[in-house]
Amino acid sequence: MTESAAQGRRAPRELGVAVLGLGNVGAEVVRIINENADDLRERIGASLVVRGIAVRDTGRERGVPAELLTDDPASLVRRDDVDIVIEVLGGIEPPRELIRTALEQGKSVVTANKALLADYTGELANAAAEANVDLYFEAAVAGAIPVVRPLMQSLAGDTVHRVAGIVNGTTNFILSAMAETGADYDSTLAEAGRLGYAEADPTADVEGYDAAAKAAILAAIAFHTRVTAADVYREGISSITAEDLASAAKFDCTIKLLSICERIREADGTERISARVYPALIPLSHPLATVSGAYNAVVVEAENAGRLMFYGQGAGGAPTASAVMGDVVMAARNKVHSGRGPLESTYASLPVAPIAEVPTRYYVAMNVIDRPGVLEGVAGEFAKHNVSIAAVRQEGDGDETQLIVITHRAPDGALAETVSALEKMEAVTKVSSVLRMEGTDE
Amino acid sequence: MTESAAQGRRAPRELGVAVLGLGNVGAEVVRIINENADDLRERIGASLVVRGIAVRDTGRERGVPAELLTDDPASLVRRDDVDIVIEVLGGIEPPRELIRTALEQGKSVVTANKALLADYTGELANAAAEANVDLYFEAAVAGAIPVVRPLMQSLAGDTVHRVAGIVNGTTNFILSAMAETGADYDSTLAEAGRLGYAEADPTADVEGYDAAAKAAILAAIAFHTRVTAADVYREGISSITAEDLASAAKFDCTIKLLSICERIREADGTERISARVYPALIPLSHPLATVSGAYNAVVVEAENAGRLMFYGQGAGGAPTASAVMGDVVMAARNKVHSGRGPLESTYASLPVAPIAEVPTRYYVAMNVIDRPGVLEGVAGEFAKHNVSIAAVRQEGDGDETQLIVITHRAPDGALAETVSALEKMEAVTKVSSVLRMEGTDE
Repeated sequence: MTESAAQGRRAPRELGVAVLGLGNVGAEVVRIINENADDLRERIGASLVVRGIAVRDTGRERGVPAELLTDDPASLVRRDDVDIVIEVLGGIEPPRELIRTALEQGKSVVTANKALLADYTGELANAAAEANVDLYFEAAVAGAIPVVRPLMQSLAGDTVHRVAGIVNGTTNFILSAMAETGADYDSTLAEAGRLGYAEADPTADVEGYDAAAKAAILAAIAFHTRVTAADVYREGISSITAEDLASAAKFDCTIKLLSICERIREADGTERISARVYPALIPLSHPLATVSGAYNAVVVEAENAGRLMFYGQGAGGAPTASAVMGDVVMAARNKVHSGRGPLESTYASLPVAPIAEVPTRYYVAMNVIDRPGVLEGVAGEFAKHNVSIAAVRQEGDGDETQLIVITHRAPDGALAETVSALEKMEAVTKVSSVLRMEGTDE
Repeated sequence: MTESAAQGRRAPRELGVAVLGLGNVGAEVVRIINENADDLRERIGASLVVRGIAVRDTGRERGVPAELLTDDPASLVRRDDVDIVIEVLGGIEPPRELIRTALEQGKSVVTANKALLADYTGELANAAAEANVDLYFEAAVAGAIPVVRPLMQSLAGDTVHRVAGIVNGTTNFILSAMAETGADYDSTLAEAGRLGYAEADPTADVEGYDAAAKAAILAAIAFHTRVTAADVYREGISSITAEDLASAAKFDCTIKLLSICERIREADGTERISARVYPALIPLSHPLATVSGAYNAVVVEAENAGRLMFYGQGAGGAPTASAVMGDVVMAARNKVHSGRGPLESTYASLPVAPIAEVPTRYYVAMNVIDRPGVLEGVAGEFAKHNVSIAAVRQEGDGDETQLIVITHRAPDGALAETVSALEKMEAVTKVSSVLRMEGTDE
């Protein structure tokens, strides 16, 4: 039985879909809509029909019917026979304008655009609320892994305290490979590029911008407050050395680039949040330590649910398209049933704590002059800044003497000031590595 | 600002809630509704108000206002001022009748009742569809872990091939403890009872009935077909010995009680499904191997998403209440916005394959007479039944000679027949252990 024959007999409603962008993800989305048409119709209660696909160059052969291609996305999203717009272009403009137009025209929108959402979710969610349509973005964080929907829906009756995740595949591939091979950063980055895990310009990944955009999205939905990429403290992995990883291993730790969103309760009962991205030591026994290669994982800690973990493929055409299509089916069902899913809520309006005031733990490695009293002097600097030391390790001797200190939790500013003070000590020839430590209770 | 003052100024709509049952989960649900009233109102757009709590004995002090208690749940679910019914009684009747009545009266229902859902989801979902209300049951499988919503919504545009999970905390506690301590089943079960991890009558847990009910629910939503508990092949853990676990460890494996739902594609393109529960060897490197104690985890394999894993607390008052409350907030939002969430769909109508036809791998341990030709004879029986051997290990000598065979994948019936034939061999004095093996590709 052909698709059209089935439609003729059953006369289901059709829902028109516009696809903006035909890269890896867009091509997989179009493939799934075509290959799984029967299943999708049953699940939705109406047929999904692709009305048009916006691309820059309509002349190129792309494996889809040429008549679907258009280089005029602005007209496509306005078409009366389009009910759902799927945006997989990336970048801020034109997606921002196209999505706003689509929402204003009463179309539901599914997007995987983390950079756009990190800065403009508020504007877009308002437009969606006014038009009573859906704005879904599961694919914007952690690819195929359901994390946006669990945070917005499954945990809607709970209080989220913390979200910590590995949400960038490129940096996780690099750090996993460095930990495994002992190779340095530059050669591992080059290898990641050769294998397709790093882009020609890897800045957005290795400097943590991608992870920071995702942290902003996660923090906003976890804490029901407005968070943009500018609110996220960010450090990348480009200064991580082979020695850092070797040293971490000696403490039964590894190094991961983490996106951390935290609710901070002050003694007076007021609350602030922290959203931050940095490479950190985590114990090998921590669930995130075993997440290797291009995989992603997100750990959520909530008041009643306790600790939850979500794990899977964080990138790639088909996995990301799976997340997009889950959103498309839900948006389509809502069109059939005249409902809509939950939008972001920002009622909590929690202030963002500056990084200096966020409690963290430091790992500090320094080269010191090998003579009596040095450890005492170093320990004194920590004490002066009210930073409590959890572990000390001294290695080598003579000119090669290295001192490694792991602290207990203290305000990040106090830790940074301690490091500055150490750098000025005559007995400390070099502070060779400063990293934070996460995934422990101390 | 008091709750009522806030309500007076903002005049939000109220939504009435009926809670059926005030055990561990019910008490936590009532606590969360009261303690988080402000947050819940913001997230829903209306206040949740508990109209009544059905208990068997209204005379007992229970830490809730006495006037809320009623021993007449049938009247409670019919009240005009009740919009959402939360069923946490457990058991088939009266919950079945109460939920059907509630749905017919236009109330949305949130339930954690896996035994009921495993057999009556169809009837209840029909009632919900006719009344255009929600029937949510995230808490029925794997406690706080979002797995129902990810399967029904996040993966709504994907094709699920397999769901395999540890979804019973009691059996996982027992097997984890046996693996760790080397103790036998009976003493570990007794210890689990003392620690509150096993009920006085542990049958439903240790014989796999609870895991089978959850497998039926998971299979139904994963494959969009009707599956009831009777369709699930089931074996419990009561015959697992300390020797089984020790032997598994020698193959770098452990033993877990798994709920497995599988889509089986035949050579001719037709599809069947399998839903089954049994203790199985899994490699220590498998993600489910590290799930210990009362924790639950579910691995989902989908066409496009690839492998996803969900991990967290599978039982307990607060974690289960977290899942219930997520559903309550979503059902409440749908009441505010006049929509409804997706119900189960059973359009696929896939037949259930009998266990004998399901491809599995066997681990067979047998005591044999130590003489030349025994291994050849044993191997011959496997070959006769077209079962390919993956690994053989011979241990001890004389009367103590033990032969362990791990097979490749073959129809479960052929494997069972092979074991029967082995039991009749004169050289095989005893088949001491037969377990399946999962989590490998072979």
